[in-house]
Amino acid sequence: MVNQVQQVDGCWHSCKGDSSAASNSSGESSKESSRCSTPVLDADRIDRLREKMRKRIDSGDHWFSLEFFPPRTASGAVNLISRFDRMGSGGPLFIDITWHPAGDPGSDKETSSMMIASTAVNYCGLESILHLTCCNQTKEKITGYLAKAKRLGLKNIMALRGDPVGDDWEEEEGGFSYAVDLVKHIRSEFDEYFDICVAGYPTGHPEAESYQQDLQHLKQKVDAGADFIITQLFFRADTFLKFLDDCRAIGITCPILPGIFPIQGYQSLRQLVKLSKLEVPEEITKVIEPIKDNDAAIRNYGIHQAVGMCRELLDSGKVPGLHFYTLNREVATMEVLRQLGLWIEDPRRPLPWAVSANPKRKVEDVRPIFWASRPKSYIYRTQDWDEFPNGRWGNSSSPAFGELNDYYLFYLKSKSSKEALLQMWGEELKNEQSVFEVFTCYITAQPNRIGQRVMCLPWNDEPLAQETNLLKDELEKVNKRGVLTINSQPNINGKPSTDPIVGWGPPGGYVFQKAYLEFFTSSENVSALLKVLKKYEPRVNYHIVNVHGRNMTNAHEMQPNAVTWGIFPGREIVQPTVVDPVSFMYWKDEAFALWIEQWAKLYEDESPSRMIIKYIHDNYFLVNLVDNDFPLENCLWQVIDDMFELLDAPPDVLSDGAVSE
Amino acid sequence: MVNQVQQVDGCWHSCKGDSSAASNSSGESSKESSRCSTPVLDADRIDRLREKMRKRIDSGDHWFSLEFFPPRTASGAVNLISRFDRMGSGGPLFIDITWHPAGDPGSDKETSSMMIASTAVNYCGLESILHLTCCNQTKEKITGYLAKAKRLGLKNIMALRGDPVGDDWEEEEGGFSYAVDLVKHIRSEFDEYFDICVAGYPTGHPEAESYQQDLQHLKQKVDAGADFIITQLFFRADTFLKFLDDCRAIGITCPILPGIFPIQGYQSLRQLVKLSKLEVPEEITKVIEPIKDNDAAIRNYGIHQAVGMCRELLDSGKVPGLHFYTLNREVATMEVLRQLGLWIEDPRRPLPWAVSANPKRKVEDVRPIFWASRPKSYIYRTQDWDEFPNGRWGNSSSPAFGELNDYYLFYLKSKSSKEALLQMWGEELKNEQSVFEVFTCYITAQPNRIGQRVMCLPWNDEPLAQETNLLKDELEKVNKRGVLTINSQPNINGKPSTDPIVGWGPPGGYVFQKAYLEFFTSSENVSALLKVLKKYEPRVNYHIVNVHGRNMTNAHEMQPNAVTWGIFPGREIVQPTVVDPVSFMYWKDEAFALWIEQWAKLYEDESPSRMIIKYIHDNYFLVNLVDNDFPLENCLWQVIDDMFELLDAPPDVLSDGAVSE
Repeated sequence: MVNQVQQVDGCWHSCKGDSSAASNSSGESSKESSRCSTPVLDADRIDRLREKMRKRIDSGDHWFSLEFFPPRTASGAVNLISRFDRMGSGGPLFIDITWHPAGDPGSDKETSSMMIASTAVNYCGLESILHLTCCNQTKEKITGYLAKAKRLGLKNIMALRGDPVGDDWEEEEGGFSYAVDLVKHIRSEFDEYFDICVAGYPTGHPEAESYQQDLQHLKQKVDAGADFIITQLFFRADTFLKFLDDCRAIGITCPILPGIFPIQGYQSLRQLVKLSKLEVPEEITKVIEPIKDNDAAIRNYGIHQAVGMCRELLDSGKVPGLHFYTLNREVATMEVLRQLGLWIEDPRRPLPWAVSANPKRKVEDVRPIFWASRPKSYIYRTQDWDEFPNGRWGNSSSPAFGELNDYYLFYLKSKSSKEALLQMWGEELKNEQSVFEVFTCYITAQPNRIGQRVMCLPWNDEPLAQETNLLKDELEKVNKRGVLTINSQPNINGKPSTDPIVGWGPPGGYVFQKAYLEFFTSSENVSALLKVLKKYEPRVNYHIVNVHGRNMTNAHEMQPNAVTWGIFPGREIVQPTVVDPVSFMYWKDEAFALWIEQWAKLYEDESPSRMIIKYIHDNYFLVNLVDNDFPLENCLWQVIDDMFELLDAPPDVLSDGAVSE
Repeated sequence: MVNQVQQVDGCWHSCKGDSSAASNSSGESSKESSRCSTPVLDADRIDRLREKMRKRIDSGDHWFSLEFFPPRTASGAVNLISRFDRMGSGGPLFIDITWHPAGDPGSDKETSSMMIASTAVNYCGLESILHLTCCNQTKEKITGYLAKAKRLGLKNIMALRGDPVGDDWEEEEGGFSYAVDLVKHIRSEFDEYFDICVAGYPTGHPEAESYQQDLQHLKQKVDAGADFIITQLFFRADTFLKFLDDCRAIGITCPILPGIFPIQGYQSLRQLVKLSKLEVPEEITKVIEPIKDNDAAIRNYGIHQAVGMCRELLDSGKVPGLHFYTLNREVATMEVLRQLGLWIEDPRRPLPWAVSANPKRKVEDVRPIFWASRPKSYIYRTQDWDEFPNGRWGNSSSPAFGELNDYYLFYLKSKSSKEALLQMWGEELKNEQSVFEVFTCYITAQPNRIGQRVMCLPWNDEPLAQETNLLKDELEKVNKRGVLTINSQPNINGKPSTDPIVGWGPPGGYVFQKAYLEFFTSSENVSALLKVLKKYEPRVNYHIVNVHGRNMTNAHEMQPNAVTWGIFPGREIVQPTVVDPVSFMYWKDEAFALWIEQWAKLYEDESPSRMIIKYIHDNYFLVNLVDNDFPLENCLWQVIDDMFELLDAPPDVLSDGAVSE
């Protein structure tokens, strides 16, 4: 096995003989370093895909990757994006998005191949490959697609010929006849910007004259500049391993990744086989035919069969990574990966928040805490920034946030239907108390009056985070009384960076947090709160603002407060989350707007329910509190308790401003 | 008293009616803030002197200031500079340096008024006022002095007429006849750049026609743009308080600071009285005459008298600060200040290292740890930088260090004579062991073989710092065996920022350190050390380099390691000390050169002693170690112990590379 790894390694080294590419990668990062930029925590983040592969091959660390196709509908897109988030958490090295010529693939439509790939990169932080087919396309059209992909931050292209339209297709003069032409075109027009993947056919391309001739075509694609190969699916490990040996024999040295297709159902198998003109081996049909109407049984068999084949491939020592044809489903692939031990249940987070994979943002390592539950909105609203904060959040790191139209962004729409939202948030609100109940049910994960569980709120489209769960009892108590919490974090005084719940960053470090609490509450409550907060100077910093921008704070007007930071071996301090006064004003607009856009608009104009939400929007304050004394027990709950106590006190105590001790 | 403070406050507010000045101050700081610059930890640092005074007046916080005159000789200058360091530690709001027309005061000579003031600002971090006298000077000459002062980072001028040369002095046409002309000139040529101080005469200027006329002259100086007044000395509090009331009565509203002269000896009092044409009150002469030959008794009386008068002044509520004529001595003034409670024995350090008062460096808050014992050398070698690191130490924060001629800088010369150095470091060195003994004696503060205490080393011109004292036992042990330590700090896991030994920064924060150790040692030791260090990966980062630049490290080549940091309420994290690979190479040159320049050169050419130091210079390595696990017990001593153990092991263990557990 050691020999095999070395062989792959050796291959790879000769493969990257075009040293311009290798030096380009590192040259790029040093060129872009400014006075304030130091190497990012996870060096991988700035590596290009072929470099990441090389490092994983060197370390013998197997990887997996996932293929998806673009959805047909907008709601399908919303679902696919959340599938990206879920499957991204297992740690794929990359995903790829197929090119659907019939689906306007290069357009700005929410369902286009281009937009889905862009979303995966920019908003889900996934290294992604965009497929591109070239037959029946002009060079100009193709160049346009590539330029757009580059503009959107895509770095990898799967160069394919695609299926010709009609039967009597002929080579076009000056156009693209084969994938190799596309590879050459990409290299000639975009130099080394893109990493290029090409397809390999373990049993030969169905249209090829012979298996040998097809191997030569593959070699031509690699010689033209392809960086690695992903194969068509196959049903026996031997098929792939023979193909791999044949490729190496004719001098193909780059990584060759087997395409794995876990059988998920009888129909989908038949359809795929028909399209790809593959033959299903008898040992498989023999098992499947008898159970063809039992979906669960077929899927179980598919998992079993895929796991066995994958084990054989990995044990050969010749396969550095596995590529999965998911058919946009997650259960079977995840199960195969789990059984193989490749699914990393709790992948180490490089930073407390999900990092975007757009190369423009590769040095970004500071964000305001406010968008913690809406990271896609933050990315969207800062997409036009030329520089991203690195190391610290300076005064002017927030030059301007994008317009507040982010809730029109399709993947920020709730995954729930209007009907489901009404069932969760109330068909009919009676008073502010009804709203308190919605928040309380969300926090406690208890069913509401009509037995419905509140799975999301306008500010949180997911159930409560594990970390926030630590605070559940306290959160329930205060939400019941109209302290409507939308963001919080506990204090942490130096937990290992490998801690499964709060850890992030490289191993061997220590992470810290200041306790944070953010909520909407009435102006009556705010009056009492302000009195109480005097007792907590300078321990607690606050910002209190209403929709009109009336702003009360005891914090420096320009100085951000670092609320999450990490100390790592041999590094400067990383402070990835800040409470900063300037961006809080941008967040305030968004947070208040969500009351109207996502909640009030569920109800009829002028209906009492809408008026209640409107009242809250118009009159409540958005409050954030930071407890600076991170080594001590979080005092923010005591602050709220003191506020309630003051509100409960006889009226004269409140009116003469005496704060009870 | 409350009323009085308000009155002063009110006065001051009307005084700063020239709002351009006030807005200039804050405008300047925001204009200079770059993306990466956030407000510095101690806002005072960027305030100009008049702003600092205003804040202290507002807060009712009394201050003191100290006057010095330039020394006659270079060694006098070296001594004065260390006096600045000692007296600076008591927390003066500012010092001032008199202008000696006869001493080439504007020149680059080490003893000139200009250079002494510049050193106080740039190297000692003291807010300083440079005196400037204008009589017998052309406007061009004066403008030249002011431009030079500005270039050197001086921000404050005491505008004086000075004593005319010869008796028959007459007003010059187009020249400066009075201090008021100088004030006008400064404002017209340099706008609001300088804060201007002028002199007040509580009993009237000796040459003035009358006390009233002299008050009018003072008012003219203030109206011309002076920011505050320091008075001539006086012997009775009443004298000053009457003068103050008279000034206020004619509309002088700026701060007026009494000049205090603690009587320190019979002769100096007589001389001063003669020069200033003052009369010593009878109640003082009555006490002094009988004890005129008893210096100690006179000084004690002087302290007693000054304390009484100062108490009276402060108790009046009209005096925000006291100005002391020190005559370049420290004992009496310090004692008066101690008795008044104005001498702050342990002033809070804004940062772990002494901040330069040059406005160009006002945002600086990160430095490499290497120059910890030679901060003046660091300031000197970075004086040409356009930007100073703020918040973090980026890749290119160290554009280039100045040439390695800093040990020619006069105030970096040892305060000890060559003779004293030889007595401390050995008239005749026998071998490397003799050198180990010098280091050990320095660490332990024990006398050497000839009964001499080793008070300094080439790398440390002061006895061991209090903080390093915590490590004394360990340091002694390793120095005895040739691990020649020159810099170290213990680990700290979150002590309050107000901790008297290791605290720094504003109150309410927490400070942290990673343990650090830096030493010279032989190449044999380094071989063993490198083997041992493998056991401590990645906990311990090291850089090991010899004079030829042969460099071994396990740290990232560009990434600094933050080894001191602080977490404060409402702020980003401050990381004022780093171990950074790039500047270590510059420090290495300096650290090795000190062996030759400060030690070897004490001995004859070709003498055995010189050859021993030369051998160490040529063959030893400079090592630095950082223990990244700051919450655990410092492991660096264990690393050194393991190295000794390995060296003590039977030869085969060392040679076959097996490290004993």
